[in-house]
Amino acid sequence: MLAQVKRFLIGTPLRNEDLAHERLTNVKALAVFSSDALSSVAYATEEILMALILAGSSALSLSMPIGLGIAVLLAVVAMSYRQTIFAYPGGGGSFIVAKENLGIYPGLISGAALLIDYVLTVAVSISAGAAAITSAFPALLPYKVEMILFAILLITVANLRGVKDSGSIFAVPTYAFVFSIFALLAVGIGRAVFGGLPPVVVTETVAAQQPLTLFLILRAFASGCTALTGVEAISDGVQAFKEPVSRNAAKTLTWMAGLLMAMFLGITYLANHVEIHPVHGGETVLSQVARAVVGQGAIYYVIQGVTALILFLAANTSYADFPRLASIIAANGYLPRQLTMRGDRLVFSNGIVLLGAVAAALVIYFHGDTHSLMPLYAVGVFLSFTMSQSGMVVRWFKHRAQDPHWAIKAAVNGLGATVTGVVLIIIASTKFTHGAWIIVLLIPIVVMVFRAVHAHYLHVADDLRMPLTEELEQVKHTIIVPIAGVNRAVAHALSYAMTLSDDVRAVHIGTDPEATEKLQAKWNQWNPGVKLTVIQTPYRSMMRPFINYVDKIERRSKLDMVTIVVPEFVPTRWWHHLLHNQSALMLRAALHFRKNTVVVSVPYHLAH
Amino acid sequence: MLAQVKRFLIGTPLRNEDLAHERLTNVKALAVFSSDALSSVAYATEEILMALILAGSSALSLSMPIGLGIAVLLAVVAMSYRQTIFAYPGGGGSFIVAKENLGIYPGLISGAALLIDYVLTVAVSISAGAAAITSAFPALLPYKVEMILFAILLITVANLRGVKDSGSIFAVPTYAFVFSIFALLAVGIGRAVFGGLPPVVVTETVAAQQPLTLFLILRAFASGCTALTGVEAISDGVQAFKEPVSRNAAKTLTWMAGLLMAMFLGITYLANHVEIHPVHGGETVLSQVARAVVGQGAIYYVIQGVTALILFLAANTSYADFPRLASIIAANGYLPRQLTMRGDRLVFSNGIVLLGAVAAALVIYFHGDTHSLMPLYAVGVFLSFTMSQSGMVVRWFKHRAQDPHWAIKAAVNGLGATVTGVVLIIIASTKFTHGAWIIVLLIPIVVMVFRAVHAHYLHVADDLRMPLTEELEQVKHTIIVPIAGVNRAVAHALSYAMTLSDDVRAVHIGTDPEATEKLQAKWNQWNPGVKLTVIQTPYRSMMRPFINYVDKIERRSKLDMVTIVVPEFVPTRWWHHLLHNQSALMLRAALHFRKNTVVVSVPYHLAH
Repeated sequence: MLAQVKRFLIGTPLRNEDLAHERLTNVKALAVFSSDALSSVAYATEEILMALILAGSSALSLSMPIGLGIAVLLAVVAMSYRQTIFAYPGGGGSFIVAKENLGIYPGLISGAALLIDYVLTVAVSISAGAAAITSAFPALLPYKVEMILFAILLITVANLRGVKDSGSIFAVPTYAFVFSIFALLAVGIGRAVFGGLPPVVVTETVAAQQPLTLFLILRAFASGCTALTGVEAISDGVQAFKEPVSRNAAKTLTWMAGLLMAMFLGITYLANHVEIHPVHGGETVLSQVARAVVGQGAIYYVIQGVTALILFLAANTSYADFPRLASIIAANGYLPRQLTMRGDRLVFSNGIVLLGAVAAALVIYFHGDTHSLMPLYAVGVFLSFTMSQSGMVVRWFKHRAQDPHWAIKAAVNGLGATVTGVVLIIIASTKFTHGAWIIVLLIPIVVMVFRAVHAHYLHVADDLRMPLTEELEQVKHTIIVPIAGVNRAVAHALSYAMTLSDDVRAVHIGTDPEATEKLQAKWNQWNPGVKLTVIQTPYRSMMRPFINYVDKIERRSKLDMVTIVVPEFVPTRWWHHLLHNQSALMLRAALHFRKNTVVVSVPYHLAH
Repeated sequence: MLAQVKRFLIGTPLRNEDLAHERLTNVKALAVFSSDALSSVAYATEEILMALILAGSSALSLSMPIGLGIAVLLAVVAMSYRQTIFAYPGGGGSFIVAKENLGIYPGLISGAALLIDYVLTVAVSISAGAAAITSAFPALLPYKVEMILFAILLITVANLRGVKDSGSIFAVPTYAFVFSIFALLAVGIGRAVFGGLPPVVVTETVAAQQPLTLFLILRAFASGCTALTGVEAISDGVQAFKEPVSRNAAKTLTWMAGLLMAMFLGITYLANHVEIHPVHGGETVLSQVARAVVGQGAIYYVIQGVTALILFLAANTSYADFPRLASIIAANGYLPRQLTMRGDRLVFSNGIVLLGAVAAALVIYFHGDTHSLMPLYAVGVFLSFTMSQSGMVVRWFKHRAQDPHWAIKAAVNGLGATVTGVVLIIIASTKFTHGAWIIVLLIPIVVMVFRAVHAHYLHVADDLRMPLTEELEQVKHTIIVPIAGVNRAVAHALSYAMTLSDDVRAVHIGTDPEATEKLQAKWNQWNPGVKLTVIQTPYRSMMRPFINYVDKIERRSKLDMVTIVVPEFVPTRWWHHLLHNQSALMLRAALHFRKNTVVVSVPYHLAH
């Protein structure tokens, strides 16, 4: 029955050869790879405003210069990644670039940062998507966490079925979002320029809670840097482009960066113009901007709808990225091997389930509040940016003999590495107490887990290695059958045991002398050809005296094996299990760590 | 480590012969057997008032005639049970009396009612004990549920260690309670008679929420009947008395009934006199009475303390009664056999843990509110009273030839049966909607569980029965070893397998043709003396093709057995388990319900 539910939810198994790749046109590729990056405009401006509002309403106007600074940063990062695309036409994810050029540990640090980041992308994007919906329909606000969890469940199940990276499916919501936002910007900026867009009436200007320090401005900048999350996606997926792959990928990256920059700056400008105040846990800034520009009509609802949609899509990309990266790290021996296995539908099922579970836990812990999740978010992204760009610098230096332009290229990536490194420090320090500390602590912990896993696998491989010239050991066997009474199940186990070895010993642990005597008499009458050894115990537990007996047997020869054959009832209904002693289970548990001892339970199938 | 924690909490195992019985003097026996009954005066009056207050303050004075009615009922029940004590000097619990005289089903109904009642005694008594404490220290009110759960945990652990039914230990709190209450009554009634005890000032008289109907009066009566819970305890434990057991037990029962009646009527009288209003979830009536009589000084705190103590003691008696009754029913084959087993400390550990867990669940569900638990309480008690007394009537009739006084005795028990039967109907109907329906529903369900368990055991016994003339079956064995690679663990499993049978088959399920070829070459080079069968699958799951292979083997002969030998890694640390596939576990689960198939995991102990 469980198997049927699984079939219904997940679908029938696919064959290995069904694993195929679609080559994407640039238009489709933009849709597939950029939902994460583009969707961040749904919350980046809000994050800047949320930091500035602490210094009062008047500080909000600083969001425009901060936005421009972030746009410059975006340009530097995009330029830097264009070079990665040309250097790694096979796909230049941060883990691969860092590992290849800087060594395994920088690679693992980068990998840890990325894995954490993918989890956060799911939690943040779906929370932001839910916020877009609750902004349009405030009545749904009390059910926000439930909505988010349901969405995570839905996306998890869809990915277990296997979501085709089909460009056509992704194209509709992505371009719908881009066009909606551009339409909003066109109308809004038009009205603003020609004077027809008055500020939103704020009932009371917010007073400053703290002075407008450089630290606060840097924190606002750090908060806005969440706009850059997802920019690296294209460089990971160069292989999916049509030939010439690198040229096409680079062109698409430029387009994506341009669109992102325009939308982000436009929304920030409009938010400034209409003097939006961010509301923690309430209506999103983008929703407020849209309402101010187009009114609360059909167009407004379309904008909220496509915003929610692209955010869910952004979460969905993590469901491709996280399991793939986890499987690469696992294939390198730093994560459990189970993560490398493709399930019935050819997807990395374990990674998908892991991602969904951790993201759901985060959402529950942070009550689905986007703003609380944000301080955790950008740390991992910028750490992997820095590692990746640093790796590129080292690479250009190594290849300096073959490449006459190496110095310029190294300079570009060097600039990228330096700038993202500085931003990383800004983010980690200004948001440290707000939650960034969790990630600063978590990344080394994850790297330590990687190390421990790797060490274990190396040790196991060592333990298992065997010269092919080695012959099989000669094992001598003693079989012990614990006897509780004379019945069919015991007879079944005994006949099983007697085919395995000539040295079969039946042992009864007696707790009640009278009952023992009766059993002995019955045994003698039955006479199955095996002597019954009786051990009397003054206690009720039979486990200890039995194990003592096994100990004595074993001590006679250290090389030989003892097999304990236990009759086990297999009832016809599950609850019948509760009515029988689980002696086979308990024996197995007790003897699990003992060498040269095997516990065999011989199932006896009850008719009822 | 777990074993050490258990040793520390529970203590070292005891030998069978340590199970001994203390013969109690009447004074000690009264303490041991009456804490349940006597402690009910802590809540019985309150329950009456709680029902009457619905008809307004003026209806409260009806509590005195209702209390007198309950006292008469108590006298009838006590007289009835005196006869049981003489008829069953070996102990006449309701289950035994009903089963012996009325048949197995009445016995089981009675048993179900009693088991449920013991659980409720724990929940109600500890909740009432906590209420006594929070009445004295209202600051503890927010932690009431936690206090109750901690008390349950404490009593459960203490009983797993084995609480000696030592009369001396029980005597102190029981008599301290009796003396405190009598002192309170002496002072209170003295002051009342000589006019020195004014009514407590109630800020506002409560208006009637509903008219004072007969139904409401009956409900108040039914609520007060909780005073009778525990009266049957002495008749269950006649054996613990000194010779002549029946005479001593009967004398003690009379004393207990007398004390209970005096305390109950006295408290009810005082509550009336000082015009106490019951407060739901607040200070108890007994606490209010005590404060009114002796003021909030040291004596008041002593009264609250001993009240809490005797209530915990009352709960503790259920920890002896529930596991003992459960073990008797289990020994009759109507409950899982595990309930008959005495643990390391000679107590019925499973029953104790079960009782603690269910009581804790009840407390959590009802938020530790004594008043909400009450409607569930008395139904079981009065059902078992009725069954037991009816059984006695039948018994006297059966023995009419031997006993000239049989008619009078039958009349006494007949009166008891009739009265308690009528009260049962009153309780069940007046409190049906308040929670009694749960018990009315639960008792038949528990009886159905009894039946199902019994039927299963009978069937199993049938399945297992075997003539002692029957010879062992001749089993032919095929051993299958699933192979994933060539290494020490595989070699170990293979040498194990080869000692078991001459028909050993190594099988590899290939998912990747290249890897399969490599393995085949390695195998041929190694040449362990067993041919490797390779099955190629287009899917990733190896389970299905492997099971198909096993199916084919089995089909060749229906009588023969297949043993699957799986190498299993035993790592040195628990978390290493997560890094390996649990193929042995999964195979065992998949093949559990298949006949003639045994899965053996041969542990390979990793060095690291």
